Amino acid sequence: MSTSSASPVTVLGLGAMGTALAGAFLASGHPTTVWNRTPARAEPLLPLGAVRAGDVAGAVEASELVVVCLLDYASVREVLDPVAGRLKGRTLVNLTNGTPEQAREAAAWAAGHGIAYLDGGIMAVPPGIGTEQAFVLYSGSRDAFDAHRPVLERLGAAHFAGTEPGLAALLDIALLSGMYGMFAGVFHALALVDTAGVPAEEFAPLLGTWIGAMAAGIPHYARQIGSGEYADGVVSNVAMQSAAFGNLLRAAEDQGLSPELIAPLQPLMARRVAEGHGHEDVAGIVELLRR
Amino acid sequence: MSTSSASPVTVLGLGAMGTALAGAFLASGHPTTVWNRTPARAEPLLPLGAVRAGDVAGAVEASELVVVCLLDYASVREVLDPVAGRLKGRTLVNLTNGTPEQAREAAAWAAGHGIAYLDGGIMAVPPGIGTEQAFVLYSGSRDAFDAHRPVLERLGAAHFAGTEPGLAALLDIALLSGMYGMFAGVFHALALVDTAGVPAEEFAPLLGTWIGAMAAGIPHYARQIGSGEYADGVVSNVAMQSAAFGNLLRAAEDQGLSPELIAPLQPLMARRVAEGHGHEDVAGIVELLRR
Repeated sequence: MSTSSASPVTVLGLGAMGTALAGAFLASGHPTTVWNRTPARAEPLLPLGAVRAGDVAGAVEASELVVVCLLDYASVREVLDPVAGRLKGRTLVNLTNGTPEQAREAAAWAAGHGIAYLDGGIMAVPPGIGTEQAFVLYSGSRDAFDAHRPVLERLGAAHFAGTEPGLAALLDIALLSGMYGMFAGVFHALALVDTAGVPAEEFAPLLGTWIGAMAAGIPHYARQIGSGEYADGVVSNVAMQSAAFGNLLRAAEDQGLSPELIAPLQPLMARRVAEGHGHEDVAGIVELLRR
Repeated sequence: MSTSSASPVTVLGLGAMGTALAGAFLASGHPTTVWNRTPARAEPLLPLGAVRAGDVAGAVEASELVVVCLLDYASVREVLDPVAGRLKGRTLVNLTNGTPEQAREAAAWAAGHGIAYLDGGIMAVPPGIGTEQAFVLYSGSRDAFDAHRPVLERLGAAHFAGTEPGLAALLDIALLSGMYGMFAGVFHALALVDTAGVPAEEFAPLLGTWIGAMAAGIPHYARQIGSGEYADGVVSNVAMQSAAFGNLLRAAEDQGLSPELIAPLQPLMARRVAEGHGHEDVAGIVELLRR
């Protein structure tokens, strides 16, 4: 292991995710100092070589790179405010779940204390940390990212989203939102076939293949949404889709299933048609979401 | 070309889809008779060898296999009722968009007139017909499906969903519902990054990869929804997800984007937690959709 790969790191917060982060650093040979408000949460990491700090100040002083993963940004502020002076000149990587606005506020706080700041969004569940499936989005200080990238890559592929500190949280939230939409559709689809006595498990491969095939349309819709132009490359326009969508809702109702997970599309498609965009692509409904 | 592959077929209804269906039969060498209420719609097919019937009765009598693709089931009834006697002993394949209930009614009508009936759901847009990407779901008479499968495969892969005539429409609708949920999430995600000045087109590959990776969870959720048991294999439970979901809605609001496409998940997750299922998987929300 090279010297740089074994640079020390501190992890503040040992929930399921923080514990997984510390475990990945330890597995890669990094001297890892950990702290948690309830000290017992460090115990599973001690046999792996973790050093348990007695207090936050001691934890911060153990490493130039300090990774924090707490319940929310209020907890981050509460834990770090008293040690802001000790963080000066170090790099703070905040992997706590939050919004872009919270990330921007934290970055401003860090800048005010001379702390290099990266905000991060983890695209993995704790058991995935350190595996090939995991990736983490970062935004904020490009210098800090470049300097610590080899260590950060221990957690999963590291993507730099931009210097605006809220970008990692924003892309994280965008990806999760996309996932939740997909799952909402998938849950509805599986529940619908189940109402008809079709085993959901037998239907799953067809559904998975279909979702994968339809996801190939994402770049097309991205071009439309990015440009605000929805009239190019239309195969099935929103007027046709709006007319047929009622069948989807009615079929669910007929089967005793509430269509509420997919229902919000209906009024949006109907409005696009009413406003003269019936010949355009369905992605144009996003224009009705912008305020 | 074998004799069986060149058996005659009749196509009633020459909208964009009906025209594509007739075109695929013609491209495979099947003698194809076509009819449309507005006869001019047949003209693009005539150079390909289509025979234009003067009336529905003549079209029906030209082939043992009659494929119908009209605007809706009301149109199907209107067109076929006068020729029910001539359809007797033939096979009717109804590829008109509709609900399972409409398919069951059509099957009952066909049975009452001694007509072998298949209801179908086309999983393709017209330009995809006859390509490897297309597939068509069928339900109803197994004998009719087996007898005509080689011809039907000209349109795309043929899947027999079951003898209950509504099943093809139900699976079709389930797949489309899943797709719409996925697109709702994707549109929201692309619009969200766009509000922050991140080019949606640059973000699209990451989003596509992520959706594909998350779709790998479909068989897991299918097992849960099929069994009604949501406590096994939980990595991130619904209590945790419900708590974090507020960030997704708030981040969209902060960026001036209405979160209405993904919002229906929130009250459902909250209800599952309130009803004591917080430790279970998020797919359990489907129990709240069943009536």
